[in-house]
Amino acid sequence: MAAEQDPEARAAARPLLTDLYQATMALGYWRAGRARDAAEFELFFRRCPFGGAFALAAGLRDYVQFLASVLPPDTDPAFFEHLRALDCSEVTVRALPEGSLAFPGVPLLQVSGPLLVVQLLETPLLCLVSYASLVATNAARLRLIAGPEKRLLEMGLRRAQGPDGGLTASTYSYLGGFDSSSNVLAGQLRGVPVAGTLAHSFVTSFSGSEVPPDPMLAPAAGEGPGVDLAAKAQVWLEQVCAHLGLGVQEPHPGERAAFVAYALAFPRAFQGLLDTYSVWRSGLPNFLAVALALGELGYRAVGVRLDSGDLLQQAQEIRKVFRAAAAQFQVPWLESVLIVVSNNIDEEALARLAQEGSEVNVIGIGTSVVTCPQQPSLGGVYKLVAVGGQPRMKLTEDPEKQTLPGSKAAFRLLGSDGSPLMDMLQLAEEPVPQAGQELRVWPPGAQEPCTVRPAQVEPLLRLCLQQGQLCEPLPSLAESRALAQLSLSRLSPEHRRLRSPAQYQVVLSERLQALVNSLCAGQSP
Amino acid sequence: MAAEQDPEARAAARPLLTDLYQATMALGYWRAGRARDAAEFELFFRRCPFGGAFALAAGLRDYVQFLASVLPPDTDPAFFEHLRALDCSEVTVRALPEGSLAFPGVPLLQVSGPLLVVQLLETPLLCLVSYASLVATNAARLRLIAGPEKRLLEMGLRRAQGPDGGLTASTYSYLGGFDSSSNVLAGQLRGVPVAGTLAHSFVTSFSGSEVPPDPMLAPAAGEGPGVDLAAKAQVWLEQVCAHLGLGVQEPHPGERAAFVAYALAFPRAFQGLLDTYSVWRSGLPNFLAVALALGELGYRAVGVRLDSGDLLQQAQEIRKVFRAAAAQFQVPWLESVLIVVSNNIDEEALARLAQEGSEVNVIGIGTSVVTCPQQPSLGGVYKLVAVGGQPRMKLTEDPEKQTLPGSKAAFRLLGSDGSPLMDMLQLAEEPVPQAGQELRVWPPGAQEPCTVRPAQVEPLLRLCLQQGQLCEPLPSLAESRALAQLSLSRLSPEHRRLRSPAQYQVVLSERLQALVNSLCAGQSP
Repeated sequence: MAAEQDPEARAAARPLLTDLYQATMALGYWRAGRARDAAEFELFFRRCPFGGAFALAAGLRDYVQFLASVLPPDTDPAFFEHLRALDCSEVTVRALPEGSLAFPGVPLLQVSGPLLVVQLLETPLLCLVSYASLVATNAARLRLIAGPEKRLLEMGLRRAQGPDGGLTASTYSYLGGFDSSSNVLAGQLRGVPVAGTLAHSFVTSFSGSEVPPDPMLAPAAGEGPGVDLAAKAQVWLEQVCAHLGLGVQEPHPGERAAFVAYALAFPRAFQGLLDTYSVWRSGLPNFLAVALALGELGYRAVGVRLDSGDLLQQAQEIRKVFRAAAAQFQVPWLESVLIVVSNNIDEEALARLAQEGSEVNVIGIGTSVVTCPQQPSLGGVYKLVAVGGQPRMKLTEDPEKQTLPGSKAAFRLLGSDGSPLMDMLQLAEEPVPQAGQELRVWPPGAQEPCTVRPAQVEPLLRLCLQQGQLCEPLPSLAESRALAQLSLSRLSPEHRRLRSPAQYQVVLSERLQALVNSLCAGQSP
Repeated sequence: MAAEQDPEARAAARPLLTDLYQATMALGYWRAGRARDAAEFELFFRRCPFGGAFALAAGLRDYVQFLASVLPPDTDPAFFEHLRALDCSEVTVRALPEGSLAFPGVPLLQVSGPLLVVQLLETPLLCLVSYASLVATNAARLRLIAGPEKRLLEMGLRRAQGPDGGLTASTYSYLGGFDSSSNVLAGQLRGVPVAGTLAHSFVTSFSGSEVPPDPMLAPAAGEGPGVDLAAKAQVWLEQVCAHLGLGVQEPHPGERAAFVAYALAFPRAFQGLLDTYSVWRSGLPNFLAVALALGELGYRAVGVRLDSGDLLQQAQEIRKVFRAAAAQFQVPWLESVLIVVSNNIDEEALARLAQEGSEVNVIGIGTSVVTCPQQPSLGGVYKLVAVGGQPRMKLTEDPEKQTLPGSKAAFRLLGSDGSPLMDMLQLAEEPVPQAGQELRVWPPGAQEPCTVRPAQVEPLLRLCLQQGQLCEPLPSLAESRALAQLSLSRLSPEHRRLRSPAQYQVVLSERLQALVNSLCAGQSP
C-alpha cells in the first residue's frame, strides 16, 4: 500500500488529532458499559458544494492510512487501560470508491465497529475526507470549464491552509482533473506529476553584469564545439529587435542574463517568464533571442509564462509574434511554444482563457483550487445510524439536521443511456434492486412515492476495510483520476452544469421511508 | 524551544514541501555561479484581509522550526552535491514579533543569506506564515466582535483544509484571541487550552433501556453512601416536569440515559446537549433532572449546549428557566450554568449573540474561523529586494505588483496617545528616526511628501535568526496572544473597525522613495 510509505500522511493522521469531546464521550460510553456495543456511523454531506449538483468522493488513501494506525497511545491511567488496548481491528468500512460521484445524504463512508472506537473516529475521518472531496470537486469543476485540451497546473502550495493542506490539495486536485502540481512533495509521496517555471526573483536577481563560470553550451546532438550562449543570444537580439521594431538597448540586460542562466541549466526545458519588466519591450525579445540561440544549437524552448495583465489578450498577441518570428527566422517549432498563464485565476477568468480560439496552453491555478474560496468547507457530517442492530435517528426540530436511521445500502439507478438517474438508499437487509424492475421510491420530503424503472443498477459502497483488514489494494491516484473523469462524462448535462444545475435526486426505499416515519412518530421500529 | 518537541511541525515543515520551480531556479543559480551571492528577500502582503485595515503577524514558531531543519536531503547526483551541503547556517531572519499588527507592504520577514538558499525558502515560508497570519487576524476580528467577556471556543478541526491545517488553525486562532480549542493535538503540542462538550451521536446512542454496570455515584464531599444517579434523576424529573408544565413521559428516556452516563463519567463537569430531540420538551427537562440529582450530591453542572435553531432567543429563554428553577428548587448556582452555542456562526451571527444582554456564555466557532471563508488566503508574497548589496526591484507594467527595492528598516510612528499613526519604511543604512523629530515621508502614490512628528518611534523588525542561530527564545503562545490583544487595544478605533476602516498608511522615507524613482526611470542606483 503506497500510503504506508507516506511519512507525511502518517504524521498528519495522528490519533490525538481529534476533538476533546470524543475523548470525554469515550469515557462516558465506557462508564456506561457500552464501549463495545456494535455501532454504525455514516459520513455524508448535506448540500453539494459551489452551487453545483455533484461532488467527487476523495480522501480514501488518507483515511485508510489513518485507520491502519493505532488509536490513542500516550494517555492516563484508569479507563485509559481500556483505551490502550483499542485498535481498529474490529472496524469495518464501506466506502464510495475514490473519484466516484457523491451526492447529498449518500454515505461516503459507512463505519461500523465497537461504539467507543467508531465514535473516536469521527473527527479525523471528517477532517481527512471532507477537504479531500471538496478540493477534488473544485478541481473537477475547473477541468469542466477548461475543457479537455488545456493543461491545468496546480500551484497553490504557498496559499494552502497549512503545509499539510498543501499536500492534500495537490493530491486531490490531480485526482479531480488537474494535470500536474508545483508541489514537489506531492510528486515524491503521491506520484503527482510535478511542473514548474521560474519566479520573478530569479529574473530580478540578475543585473546583466554577472559572468557565468561556464558560459559554453554544447549542441543538442552532442557533436561539435560548445558555444557561448550569452554571446549568441546577443547576436540574435539584434535581429529580433530589428524584426520587432525595438531599439536593441530596450530589453533589460539582467532579464536576458537570467534567461541565459536558466537556458544553460535547462537547455532542453527553457522557459521564459516575460513580465518582470515589460512583456513587449523586454521579456518577449529577450526570450526570442535566447530561444533562437538555443535553436541554433538544436534545442527547442518549451514555453513562456505571463503572470500579470490581460492574460488572454497577451497570449493572442504573443502567438502572433511567435508565428511571425517562426516564419521570419525559419524555425517552425517557435509557433507552438507553450503559453503558460497564472495570476489569481478563478472560474470566471478560466472560462475566458479557455474560450474558443484561445492561444493559452497551460493555466496555473493556486488560491482558487487550493482554498476553494467559493465555499471553503464541504460541511461533511458523521452520524450514528445504528447501535446494537437498532436504528438510531437524530430527530431535532431543525428538519435539515435530521438523520436517516439504520444500516443502509446505496445504489445508483442508471438510465438506458448509462447516465445516472438518481441514487437510492434502502435498508441493508432489503433485496438488491434489479435492473428493469419497477421500484417505488420516496424523494426527500415527498407526500407520496414515485416509480422508476432503471436500465442498470450499480451498488455504490464497496467493502474497503473488514475487521481492520484492507480488502483490496487501493487504486492508484491516476486510476482514481480516470474514474472521476469517466463518472463526470456519464453525468447528464443538466446535472453536470456548474450554475443552477438540476438537482440530482437521492430517494429512499419504501421500507426506509417507513422506518423514518415510525421513528418521527416516536414509535420503536 | 517548544517547537523542537513538536513532531507534527517537524513532519509538516519538510524541505521537499516546495514548488518545483524553486529547485529548477536553484540549478539555474548554481549553473550561473551565483548560488552564494548574498541576497535578501522580504515576505509581506499587499492588502489587508477581510476588508479590514490590519492583520496580525503569526507563524513564527512554525517557520523557525522549519529553518532549524536542514535543506534538501534525498535527491540526485551532480549539482545535488552542492545542495547536499546546504543548510540555513548562513541565513539571517528579521521578523515582526508574533502577535504584532502587520500592514500591507511592511515585511513580516526579512530573510538574507546565500541566493540559492534564500530562494529555496520562498514556498515553505509563504506557506507557514500566510495561513497562520490569516487565521490569527480572522480570530482577532471575531474577538473584537465578541467583546472581552464571551468565551470563544475554536472547534473547526473537522472543517479544516487538511489535518495540519487544523493544527495551525487551532494554534493561531488561540493566538488571535480565542480562549480554547476542541483540538486535542493543539493542546498536547502547542499548549492551547482544550475544551469540549458532547455530540448528538452520544445522545442518540442511548435508548433508555441500557443498564450501566455501576449506576452508583458517591457524593462530591466523598462521605456518605453512593446514590443511584438514574433513579435520583427520575425522581427529579417528575418535579421538573410539574414545574415546567410537561407530562413526565415527554422527555426522551434515551437522552436522559445519555445525560446520566455522561454525569457518571464527569460528575464535576456535567454538560447537556439539548437539541437532539426537542429542547423544550426533552433536552431541558432531562438536563434539569440530572443537574438537580447531581446537585443533591453536591456537584454543580457546568453547562448546556445548543447546536440548532435561534441560538440567542433560546439562550434568553433557557436563562429564564434556569432562574425560575433555581428559585423553585433553591439551588442558586443553577442560574449561572453556562450556555454554550454553536452552528455555523459567522461574524454577523456572532455580533447578534454578543449583543448587550445576551445570556450566551460560550460560543463555539468552526468553519468561520478555520477556513476564513470571507477570504481564504492572505496573498503573502516573498520578493527579492537586494543581491550582493545592490537593490533589486520588479518593475512590471502592473503597478500593484511592483516591489520596493533595497534592504530596509521598518518603524511604527506613534502619536502622543500611544496609538500607531503610520508605519515607515526606509533604507537599512539610514539613521533611525527619533521621537519628536519632524520626518518628511512619502505616502504610496503621492506626488509630494508630507511631514509627521511622531511622539514615539518603535522599530518593527527583530533579529530572530542570525547566521542560522536563534537569537532569543521564542515567546510562549500565550505571550504572543497577549501581545496581539495589547496591540489591537492601542490601534485607533478608525483603523480597528472591521467594516470600511480608515486605511492605515505605510510611508517611505525620502531616500527610499528616491531609490524607487531612480529604478523606475531605468537608472542604476
